[in-house]
Amino acid sequence: MESTTRLLLPEVVDSLETDPEQMLDLANELHAADLADLAQALSPELSQKLFTVLPPELGADILENCEQDRRTELFENLASESISAATAITDVMAADDRVDMLAELQPELRNQLLAHMDEEESRDIRQLLAYQDDSAGSLMTTDYVALRAETTAEGAIEEIRVIAQEMETIYQAYAVDPNGTLLGVISLRDLVTAPKGSTLAEIMNPNIITTKAEDDQEEVARLIAKYDLLALPVVDHHHHLVGIITIDDAIDIVEEEATEDMQRLGAVDPLEGAYISTPFIELIKARLPWLVILFLAVQLTPYVLEHFTRMHKNAIMLSWFIPLIASSGGNSGTQSASLIIRALAMGRLQLSDAKKVLARETMVGLLLGLTLALIGVSAILARPATRIAGLALTIAFALVTVVTLGALLGSGIPMLLQRLGIDPAVSSTPFIASIVDVSSLIIYFEVANIFLG
Amino acid sequence: MESTTRLLLPEVVDSLETDPEQMLDLANELHAADLADLAQALSPELSQKLFTVLPPELGADILENCEQDRRTELFENLASESISAATAITDVMAADDRVDMLAELQPELRNQLLAHMDEEESRDIRQLLAYQDDSAGSLMTTDYVALRAETTAEGAIEEIRVIAQEMETIYQAYAVDPNGTLLGVISLRDLVTAPKGSTLAEIMNPNIITTKAEDDQEEVARLIAKYDLLALPVVDHHHHLVGIITIDDAIDIVEEEATEDMQRLGAVDPLEGAYISTPFIELIKARLPWLVILFLAVQLTPYVLEHFTRMHKNAIMLSWFIPLIASSGGNSGTQSASLIIRALAMGRLQLSDAKKVLARETMVGLLLGLTLALIGVSAILARPATRIAGLALTIAFALVTVVTLGALLGSGIPMLLQRLGIDPAVSSTPFIASIVDVSSLIIYFEVANIFLG
Repeated sequence: MESTTRLLLPEVVDSLETDPEQMLDLANELHAADLADLAQALSPELSQKLFTVLPPELGADILENCEQDRRTELFENLASESISAATAITDVMAADDRVDMLAELQPELRNQLLAHMDEEESRDIRQLLAYQDDSAGSLMTTDYVALRAETTAEGAIEEIRVIAQEMETIYQAYAVDPNGTLLGVISLRDLVTAPKGSTLAEIMNPNIITTKAEDDQEEVARLIAKYDLLALPVVDHHHHLVGIITIDDAIDIVEEEATEDMQRLGAVDPLEGAYISTPFIELIKARLPWLVILFLAVQLTPYVLEHFTRMHKNAIMLSWFIPLIASSGGNSGTQSASLIIRALAMGRLQLSDAKKVLARETMVGLLLGLTLALIGVSAILARPATRIAGLALTIAFALVTVVTLGALLGSGIPMLLQRLGIDPAVSSTPFIASIVDVSSLIIYFEVANIFLG
Repeated sequence: MESTTRLLLPEVVDSLETDPEQMLDLANELHAADLADLAQALSPELSQKLFTVLPPELGADILENCEQDRRTELFENLASESISAATAITDVMAADDRVDMLAELQPELRNQLLAHMDEEESRDIRQLLAYQDDSAGSLMTTDYVALRAETTAEGAIEEIRVIAQEMETIYQAYAVDPNGTLLGVISLRDLVTAPKGSTLAEIMNPNIITTKAEDDQEEVARLIAKYDLLALPVVDHHHHLVGIITIDDAIDIVEEEATEDMQRLGAVDPLEGAYISTPFIELIKARLPWLVILFLAVQLTPYVLEHFTRMHKNAIMLSWFIPLIASSGGNSGTQSASLIIRALAMGRLQLSDAKKVLARETMVGLLLGLTLALIGVSAILARPATRIAGLALTIAFALVTVVTLGALLGSGIPMLLQRLGIDPAVSSTPFIASIVDVSSLIIYFEVANIFLG
């Protein structure tokens, strides 16, 4: 809960319980995002009351600013109390948020709401609902400004003035032909500064960056960020304009994708909502499978160790350094993986650079490994109990090798996955560390066989 | 390199070498972001040529779309060849990008460019240069639309039309009093749809979300994302408007902050630029200190192991399971840390929830640990060499304990750091894993003392 919410919550609860008029005044002074924070902090009964006290437009503003999972909860809770209050709100919600919310609702409630809309509207929504989650189609709004190319700039401004209220943005308008084919984009800035009498065809930009409805949201965000677009038009396979995605959605996507990648990197399946509101069972489902996979991956280590310790006279002493060696390899691998996975996700590293990356990581690994070896050997030689030349050499060689191997696997595995068309972030850092772990042990004892054999 | 760049590069190289006119045609057809990609892929000589062939406006567009580190390189390279071409470009660059670039240049070159500007301009820039890197002041542009509150909507549109060319955005205008105090915000949408004759004072929104020039860029991005702002006004301590930050900068900040957090999570100091263009020495500087710290953190493990193995008759057999136990604790800690650190960074988890989080992580840890224990014990009992009840009990108890401890430390340490005002992301996942490693070993052998006495 943010501090504004914490401070205002008692006043809101009090107003709702005793003086709904006062609640309306308060709501009109607050930003919708803050009002949404408050609504999410209320009890189910009081949140129902909030939505019935406020006009549907404010109710819609609140829902548009809620976390996705909490929004569904709030709305279903309201609908269970008053279906008419619920339909009044869906009638005035922004087209893209409305579809997103409808997609999350219980099927019976969704159908009830769709039945209440006029036929064209409900057909449009059913069409939008059919787009895959996380696709451009599921994100876009159909409330965009489309104009004929022969309109003049003044005429366009006049048209925009009339329809502005219902549009997601009026800062970008789109010139289309009678079939809906996208011809060009015109910003309101262009319209306002256009010489008198010029037509859209004359001032529009015909080099349009577009996306297809089935494209992934990651690509949408990348295009908007790269080309500094206020809105990205979505077209079908005939280049007909079917919707637009605005830049404020792109920020949300960038945040969401980064969160998902960080969770994957930490060996957690991406959560649907915020950590704190994720049900216990969902948290287990997101974590248990990966933890089990990682556990199975290191099941080989007892066999490897048994094999080596049975044949080695210094087995006990060597075992003291297992965590040191294994964790150094794992850490070096984690460093490389975090750098490479993020660079690949941001499109700032191409697979054509793979050789250069591997060569670099080898050099980095050797240098890092040598430094650790220097420290490790000093620590060993400083203690009478371990002041054995063979042991020092073993630790030194093992450290250089496993740190270099870590850097190579940490950079190589993500690039290999990208090559195979798999999201590199699934090769979580614990996964890289586990692979390095097993290899580290083998290397360590083989080196020991040479120097302490 | 993106595929567009790869495809066009030969044509660009050819045009620059043989037919500069053709290069100009090509440049006019391309989007500035793609042109920037191409410029960054050219040799130093050809990039100099590109900037001298293109008009300064296109040169400015290119630099505005480059990666920060490459931009400095390209510009310094151009300035070394032709200082007049360089000054022509800085004259037409967007105010915020120009300041960002000047901040990165060699001091002599910077002073040379400042000396070339008129006095007022160079004073403005010196003022902007004084703001701390990553602060709102360093990001803002001074090219915003400020209007008097008594202006009519039509008058405002007329004023905007005249100055539109020089403004970063015209979609948000700001009403100020004669002292420059910010009174309200008006969108171009409000202006276009305002009833005839209404003044800004009547239609403006006086509830303005603002930021201070010294605020951190993370806060700037959070405000823009939360309130869906197209631009965020920056004010000084007297509430005078001093600049604005636009939403396209917020996307870049969100991406940059997520990249930095991911690198910190992977125990790497955030890189200045892209991985692939980071000099080798910078890569070492970002990684070596953390790797050494982590290595020092596990220096205790040989002592712990020596202590326990010397006193335990089953030491060799117990050593086989060290990687299994330690990595399970580390993985569980990594999972918790990735979830909690991201939730804290996004402001979606508050420290007031700390108790709830720790209680939850304990339950999650116990359940995850029990599952791993079940698998681990089955594997042990399946092999004649390890079919020993005491060993099975040791592994089971140790797994449950270290996995729970991992979940607790992985969530607790980041929250503790946040409490102390330290960025939780510095408690990288390898750091959490190392702490869990050391504790795991002690727990494991203590448990073994009980069951294998």
